[in-house]
Amino acid sequence: MTPIVGRKATGLVAATFTPLTPEGEINLSEIRPYVDYLLEQQGVKSIFVNGTTGEGMSLTVEERKLLAVEWLIQNVARHAAEIGADGISVISPSFFKPATAEALRMFLQEVAAAAPAMPFYYYHIPAVTGVNLRSRDVLEGIANQIPSFQGLKFSGSDLMDFGQCVNYSPSHWSLLYGIDEQLLGALAMGANGAVGSTYNYLGSSVNRLMSAFDKGDLPKARTIQFQVQDILCYAINLGFDLAVNKQLMSEVSGLALGPPRLPLLPCPHPKALSIAQRLQQILGEQ
Amino acid sequence: MTPIVGRKATGLVAATFTPLTPEGEINLSEIRPYVDYLLEQQGVKSIFVNGTTGEGMSLTVEERKLLAVEWLIQNVARHAAEIGADGISVISPSFFKPATAEALRMFLQEVAAAAPAMPFYYYHIPAVTGVNLRSRDVLEGIANQIPSFQGLKFSGSDLMDFGQCVNYSPSHWSLLYGIDEQLLGALAMGANGAVGSTYNYLGSSVNRLMSAFDKGDLPKARTIQFQVQDILCYAINLGFDLAVNKQLMSEVSGLALGPPRLPLLPCPHPKALSIAQRLQQILGEQ
Amino acid sequence: MTPIVGRKATGLVAATFTPLTPEGEINLSEIRPYVDYLLEQQGVKSIFVNGTTGEGMSLTVEERKLLAVEWLIQNVARHAAEIGADGISVISPSFFKPATAEALRMFLQEVAAAAPAMPFYYYHIPAVTGVNLRSRDVLEGIANQIPSFQGLKFSGSDLMDFGQCVNYSPSHWSLLYGIDEQLLGALAMGANGAVGSTYNYLGSSVNRLMSAFDKGDLPKARTIQFQVQDILCYAINLGFDLAVNKQLMSEVSGLALGPPRLPLLPCPHPKALSIAQRLQQILGEQ
Amino acid sequence: MTPIVGRKATGLVAATFTPLTPEGEINLSEIRPYVDYLLEQQGVKSIFVNGTTGEGMSLTVEERKLLAVEWLIQNVARHAAEIGADGISVISPSFFKPATAEALRMFLQEVAAAAPAMPFYYYHIPAVTGVNLRSRDVLEGIANQIPSFQGLKFSGSDLMDFGQCVNYSPSHWSLLYGIDEQLLGALAMGANGAVGSTYNYLGSSVNRLMSAFDKGDLPKARTIQFQVQDILCYAINLGFDLAVNKQLMSEVSGLALGPPRLPLLPCPHPKALSIAQRLQQILGEQ
Repeated sequence: MTPIVGRKATGLVAATFTPLTPEGEINLSEIRPYVDYLLEQQGVKSIFVNGTTGEGMSLTVEERKLLAVEWLIQNVARHAAEIGADGISVISPSFFKPATAEALRMFLQEVAAAAPAMPFYYYHIPAVTGVNLRSRDVLEGIANQIPSFQGLKFSGSDLMDFGQCVNYSPSHWSLLYGIDEQLLGALAMGANGAVGSTYNYLGSSVNRLMSAFDKGDLPKARTIQFQVQDILCYAINLGFDLAVNKQLMSEVSGLALGPPRLPLLPCPHPKALSIAQRLQQILGEQ
Repeated sequence: MTPIVGRKATGLVAATFTPLTPEGEINLSEIRPYVDYLLEQQGVKSIFVNGTTGEGMSLTVEERKLLAVEWLIQNVARHAAEIGADGISVISPSFFKPATAEALRMFLQEVAAAAPAMPFYYYHIPAVTGVNLRSRDVLEGIANQIPSFQGLKFSGSDLMDFGQCVNYSPSHWSLLYGIDEQLLGALAMGANGAVGSTYNYLGSSVNRLMSAFDKGDLPKARTIQFQVQDILCYAINLGFDLAVNKQLMSEVSGLALGPPRLPLLPCPHPKALSIAQRLQQILGEQ
Repeated sequence: MTPIVGRKATGLVAATFTPLTPEGEINLSEIRPYVDYLLEQQGVKSIFVNGTTGEGMSLTVEERKLLAVEWLIQNVARHAAEIGADGISVISPSFFKPATAEALRMFLQEVAAAAPAMPFYYYHIPAVTGVNLRSRDVLEGIANQIPSFQGLKFSGSDLMDFGQCVNYSPSHWSLLYGIDEQLLGALAMGANGAVGSTYNYLGSSVNRLMSAFDKGDLPKARTIQFQVQDILCYAINLGFDLAVNKQLMSEVSGLALGPPRLPLLPCPHPKALSIAQRLQQILGEQ
Repeated sequence: MTPIVGRKATGLVAATFTPLTPEGEINLSEIRPYVDYLLEQQGVKSIFVNGTTGEGMSLTVEERKLLAVEWLIQNVARHAAEIGADGISVISPSFFKPATAEALRMFLQEVAAAAPAMPFYYYHIPAVTGVNLRSRDVLEGIANQIPSFQGLKFSGSDLMDFGQCVNYSPSHWSLLYGIDEQLLGALAMGANGAVGSTYNYLGSSVNRLMSAFDKGDLPKARTIQFQVQDILCYAINLGFDLAVNKQLMSEVSGLALGPPRLPLLPCPHPKALSIAQRLQQILGEQ
């Protein structure tokens, strides 16, 4: 279960890394400067915490609660807003996998019923869960089973499924796309916004991509999308996992995010530095 | 090896089914009305023959030659054009799979060298070949190894890879997209055209999608894309394979395309009819 | 983390189902008759609790503790033995997957260090975790990192990897095989025992298989193995998942094991009954 | 289609490499010494030609015919036997995959009908074809559809499926196992013999494994099986594909087998040499 905290589930949402101390304990004191960085350096106002990027599955329930509250307080303080998370999102169980869309929907219903006042998002991420049920089938009739249903975070490359979700959704749902390197395709298909780990350090660029797209300037949007792809290709060729991604964020932002937890191994400093330099080189070119 | 015949590898290209007699022999006499149908009913001028849709791998070399010549003659006759195929395209070997992009490029080079005057396309279709090498890596330096290289048919859902190919390609290459149900995403990423089996019977609709996209009318383009998706979802839920697809084309066009070859089993008539009716219902709605 | 409780990690070990009430709460009162059934009807003295079969990943940490204690007490009472579990076993993290055998071994080391006096087993189950690291590589030098290391539960079909583990292991380790339907192959390769869900209801038959194998009577061992396969094939053709398996155990044993938890859906009664009848028919044939 | 030539489809069958000249043309003159080597050095009398090991899918139909005849003549000459192949074996189509066991059986029937007097074997190799239909289902009623049906070459790790095939087969069928590194498990399950590429250079050792197994000496059989696994693990860790395997055979046997065809790349000499040395070291230990 991964609370989304922040203003609104549209536009760019940064899936935040969890700051840890060098010993691997959660480090709440780094959250305030992290929120500042996102707002001031990247122009990103919405955050998605305790998700995959935040190593949510490697945290205890207690740690997740502490983190959620701290992110919420800092984000609210920064935006002078009323207290309150904007929603929760839930992925499919991945150890025991639901056999049908109906079974998954029943599971989501049971979870949502525990917090009926909280806007609820289904988070489709088949490459991680191994659950390949089509989102469109999961959405079928879901508003009846989950009155708080509010939208979808779709982290898959099947744009037919995504398109069918867009087509099925009422206008007050949010359709957020989660594969950062092909966001432009999803925007064409009707995405309302995006959630991703790269928006921690590429938020400023991708905000310009989205503006260009909104103005119908596809060549400019494409140019930025290709830059994002260039950076990620470079990282993937070096070997890119969550540990590298977290260290890359430390390099780019100057925040002290610490190591990942096992079974992830810390990223060697020179590797993250090399990617950070490539990132600056590519973005400097524009 | 799959000859593309027709005028130009941009816009819509129909990957044609191979007409067979009820006994399973190739049926050259059905090709002339087929070309007429594509041009007059669907507005599709380019064809891709002996490919996956054409059951190329179930045909003998001799049969493929006879078919290529007949398609070529009919297409040329219809367009009053000079004789000549516009190119050949080659997929990766899939029984022995190349271990690296370099090995695949060397294989493509060997094939291309056998017909050095013929424009050459690499055809990326990982779901069928099981070869997951990134196209971008296959393209690296390919113009030096294959002077006749002319472009890419990309039938994959990885739009990062596709985007990187677009970004790498000189302007005289063609970048054709091959997953019909998510064409709009690929157009946003920079595709020049599309090759697909559904353009046999949805060519007219998708030509309007492409026009809308070119004019910047995304809502209209999306509406048509969603219709295409609706039709395919309906078919997929019933069970959709090449045999069903071929029978569907027979139902919609009135052409006598015959059964598929083993190991594909013929599609029951009511199933194809049901999909054809759904297709007409959805397209009639617009 | 799945405690093994019972006498010794050799011979047959039943991976127990978790008894739940009809409302889905854990049902401790059904554990005593369950232990009786295993001992008296199946001749199975060792149990593996809170594992995959026991829906361990759908239980809270608190529930797992209560269950482990209750199974332990009942098993000890039944065997008039000293109190004490015989070991714990740990699978690979499956949400964040270890990239190398070394990373997995470091993770196992961290877990084992929390209970250093408890015999420790690594549990290899790649079809469920999606982690395809070879067990042999995980075992490399593991005795130095985990002094309490005691053996392997191997639930994979790669008998080369399993054989290499047998070959590498000192004689005081246990090598337990976990794919019930091909146990005979693993015995030939050197397995010391077996852990599986089917030993809940096929323990008596498979005990005879193991006796026949030990006496060098391969034809008899094969006959029983083929019966086990026949039963499982029949079940698989009907659709066999953990929910069906649990209901089958209820049918065969008369125990009230209750429904599974979401996202698993309850098995229709007639389906489990049909498999139970087939089981009795096949075993009655011998 | 891969002719088996030789005396009988039991015991060990070497899947032969295809000798090529340095320029990549078939090299018929190397076949006679190859047959001598198998008989005299390895004690292997049966061969399986034009299969996966023989790069059958990279050969033209004409080349395959020439090769089959030459292997046949040499093998017959060597054994002073009457002329005649002992059978043909056919894998599933892998580009268009059969959707059901019935579709595959119909395809096999069509092929078998072209040579009705030739003993016919179905060759199950799912890791290569991507066709995961259970062999047991393919065998259902096959004797009615293919009167010449004679047995199964099973190159899969699912010993439940294999066991069910053994159980279903009449005694005059041959059940040959094809994963060399876990042969012992398949022998326990009832295999009659084995077909594999490693029997080109490990035939002598594996003949002793089979003798030990037949005499009930499992510890000795296991020792040899573990040696075979050690050699293959060593090779796999270095990177082991068909090209390496072919070069390894050249190193061990002294035969001039030449390079593989594209898309396989030639194996560097030192790599094959290193594996050959490890092989000799391990086998020398026994």
